[in-house]
Amino acid sequence: MVSDVSSEQLLALRHRHLLGLATYAGDEIQLILDTAREFREVLERPIKRVPTLRDVTVVNLFFESSTRTRISFELAEKRLSADTVNFSASASSVAKGETLKDTARNIEAMKIDMVVIRHRSAGAAHFLTRCVDSVVINAGDGAHEHPTQGLLDLLTMSDSFPTFEGLNVSIIGDITHSRVARSNIHGLKALGANVTLCGPTTMMPFGIEAMGVRVTHRLDEALEGCDVAMALRIQLERQEGGLFPSLREYHNQFGIKLAHLDQHKDLLIMHPGPINRGVELASEVADHERAVILNQVTNGVAVRMAVLYLLAGRARSGQPS
Amino acid sequence: MVSDVSSEQLLALRHRHLLGLATYAGDEIQLILDTAREFREVLERPIKRVPTLRDVTVVNLFFESSTRTRISFELAEKRLSADTVNFSASASSVAKGETLKDTARNIEAMKIDMVVIRHRSAGAAHFLTRCVDSVVINAGDGAHEHPTQGLLDLLTMSDSFPTFEGLNVSIIGDITHSRVARSNIHGLKALGANVTLCGPTTMMPFGIEAMGVRVTHRLDEALEGCDVAMALRIQLERQEGGLFPSLREYHNQFGIKLAHLDQHKDLLIMHPGPINRGVELASEVADHERAVILNQVTNGVAVRMAVLYLLAGRARSGQPS
Amino acid sequence: MVSDVSSEQLLALRHRHLLGLATYAGDEIQLILDTAREFREVLERPIKRVPTLRDVTVVNLFFESSTRTRISFELAEKRLSADTVNFSASASSVAKGETLKDTARNIEAMKIDMVVIRHRSAGAAHFLTRCVDSVVINAGDGAHEHPTQGLLDLLTMSDSFPTFEGLNVSIIGDITHSRVARSNIHGLKALGANVTLCGPTTMMPFGIEAMGVRVTHRLDEALEGCDVAMALRIQLERQEGGLFPSLREYHNQFGIKLAHLDQHKDLLIMHPGPINRGVELASEVADHERAVILNQVTNGVAVRMAVLYLLAGRARSGQPS
Repeated sequence: MVSDVSSEQLLALRHRHLLGLATYAGDEIQLILDTAREFREVLERPIKRVPTLRDVTVVNLFFESSTRTRISFELAEKRLSADTVNFSASASSVAKGETLKDTARNIEAMKIDMVVIRHRSAGAAHFLTRCVDSVVINAGDGAHEHPTQGLLDLLTMSDSFPTFEGLNVSIIGDITHSRVARSNIHGLKALGANVTLCGPTTMMPFGIEAMGVRVTHRLDEALEGCDVAMALRIQLERQEGGLFPSLREYHNQFGIKLAHLDQHKDLLIMHPGPINRGVELASEVADHERAVILNQVTNGVAVRMAVLYLLAGRARSGQPS
Repeated sequence: MVSDVSSEQLLALRHRHLLGLATYAGDEIQLILDTAREFREVLERPIKRVPTLRDVTVVNLFFESSTRTRISFELAEKRLSADTVNFSASASSVAKGETLKDTARNIEAMKIDMVVIRHRSAGAAHFLTRCVDSVVINAGDGAHEHPTQGLLDLLTMSDSFPTFEGLNVSIIGDITHSRVARSNIHGLKALGANVTLCGPTTMMPFGIEAMGVRVTHRLDEALEGCDVAMALRIQLERQEGGLFPSLREYHNQFGIKLAHLDQHKDLLIMHPGPINRGVELASEVADHERAVILNQVTNGVAVRMAVLYLLAGRARSGQPS
Repeated sequence: MVSDVSSEQLLALRHRHLLGLATYAGDEIQLILDTAREFREVLERPIKRVPTLRDVTVVNLFFESSTRTRISFELAEKRLSADTVNFSASASSVAKGETLKDTARNIEAMKIDMVVIRHRSAGAAHFLTRCVDSVVINAGDGAHEHPTQGLLDLLTMSDSFPTFEGLNVSIIGDITHSRVARSNIHGLKALGANVTLCGPTTMMPFGIEAMGVRVTHRLDEALEGCDVAMALRIQLERQEGGLFPSLREYHNQFGIKLAHLDQHKDLLIMHPGPINRGVELASEVADHERAVILNQVTNGVAVRMAVLYLLAGRARSGQPS
């Protein structure tokens, strides 16, 4: 029972905010995954709502548009019985030239306990923690981190593999612009997995090996001995920037096809969505039984419930960050 | 009491989804209308909220903009104590090129029980039922059907007439592009009413008589012996397409004027809204005591409560579709 | 306890709607401020939600975009346990050419108890009261009034000063286009304060002295002997209209700078937000301990709770307006 999570467990989460997985230790990540598994059981029940955060107000501050992440957070908040208020940039004072700091402080002055923020600028969530006393959860900041995505990916992997120790995970695509990749790398390394990055040279940050990862520009090399292949979404709008010659050529070189699944009989396929079918993944791969993409989505709600729950607990115990 | 609706009644709704009225039999439609009347009593009480759908999560997937239909569904859901999440196309992955199928499956993976969908493509709601296990309610799909509008229209007629058997209903306007007309025709025919369609030849689908309706291009013919005149909204943006010469001429030929109400002393006036005053209806006709346009709106919330309630009951009894 | 507010107190609010402060007498305003102070205590508790408006449905009809006012109302409604539905113009029938009257009557036909409306046209809220039976709260109508802003400003002043009698308040900026100024002038005069208006001649309505205010075009004159300086937001988009030569020159002449705070040791600084830092206020002034701008925001939620509570009470007692 989630309500039985002991105070020792709460103390194990040493952070007051979730800005990224870079600073989270393995035991903290494991605590979140364990808690998420408990909430996942709640989601399987006919009655999916628990009164856990009944007196907590959460604002969803989305400066970038989003379907699944916003809805996933909103569902997580509602299933915890939190009060939620949505804010999207288009209908906002941002258009009137207000600074992020002033927006944040105004929202905090309305006595809001937690802020979920998505923003195009790397560091926006961290900046927010310096302006407000509320708990801050990063829902994606530029190309920096998207920690709840990383956590839901880790939870999904842990559903298929008993341990991260020695697990071989390959992340394929536009690594340079991917906050998803960054959060996954931090989380996977903290838990003892081996990470391989694969993509065109134009999409691979120089010196990324310093993060303790292996780099290759050949898909077959990335899939050799690989347990989990995570394909990243190609931002189609970047094609004009010349980062890759054509979608067809990208698919030929880096797209995962049915033949790869035949060749690697235990390979698990992941994708953060939304999928460009026929680009990162052949359509049959996206729908394959070894593609756990919809499990990722289900796990997203559970992981976000866990994060909200654990951080709200910290917030209410009134301890320093 | 709604809570006393027996299992026999639930079994009477043989559909798992509400995609259109074309396949609903008269007894199913009557069950929905009867249930809606019970919910309408709830709406007259000081306490309008019932706990009926406390553990049901509904997503409102609106790919087309809408005021009244979206708010009406949202109110119906909230008054049944369902958890609701709104999704509008503008702030969505649709802009990122995701397919409807992937959007739907992602949302379902978040453990959502019911989907209310509005989409510009005829068949979108039906397509959805093939992608997801959730209950699907069509809130308007292209020019195909808008079944809850049809049901609220039927409920409104039944408030003034004891039976549909032999009732004479004329639907006036752009029949070709009207999902409202199509749902009404199906529902009215199922209940035994006589339907006359009236409009310019450019707005009348060829061969529509096969639906068992009478067709005329003269308003006086449509109003002769008519019990209910339902004026459809003219899409002003279609005027450029040359479907009718001018708004003034349309009003002259097909607009209902005060003289018509004087001439036909028992004629009831309906309109799905929003009204173009001075086009489909003279402004005094829209505000006339025999215009039941606002009753339609009130009935809309009650009908949607009934549909949500009856379909959720089916969903939870776990029977095949 | 708010729940102990006696029926005598309810009777003291003689209005059925809140359209502006122009017609509210001093004792009515004081009742709202007293009630808001009680709700502010609720906001300081860990459990911020009270069941007061459990059975009331409120629609937020925002025809103009807004961050803080909409979120502030929404929080106030949620903390009173009201059901809320949001409507914003962009996704609405307004685009389809429906009149405000038809929109309003349709929404009312859905059995909504209270309407919070923001609209670009002065008089829109008043017009609404003639179309619908719901209680109407004006959240800003053109350059006319923004009464809940006026009330939150009054509450903020009353936190620092024991009485309004003889209090010297200067309002600085674009008076002509400011609904905030107008609501403050009415409220302050009703409570016995002295009001000075200060701004460029192009931004000062001709004959405004008839409202019982002093007018000056020199900031030092406005700040002399002043207790509260309220800087209004400059609408940057108006600069092209030639109302003032440049932002720099505006700041030089009418911007409040640190030197002013040094010179006037007890001066309180207020601003309705969002601030243009370096224009109306030097950035250090905005962050100064004597700037109570964030208190204004906090008070906004409490004042809106009080208004909703008091007007809903009237509504339910069924008395004529």
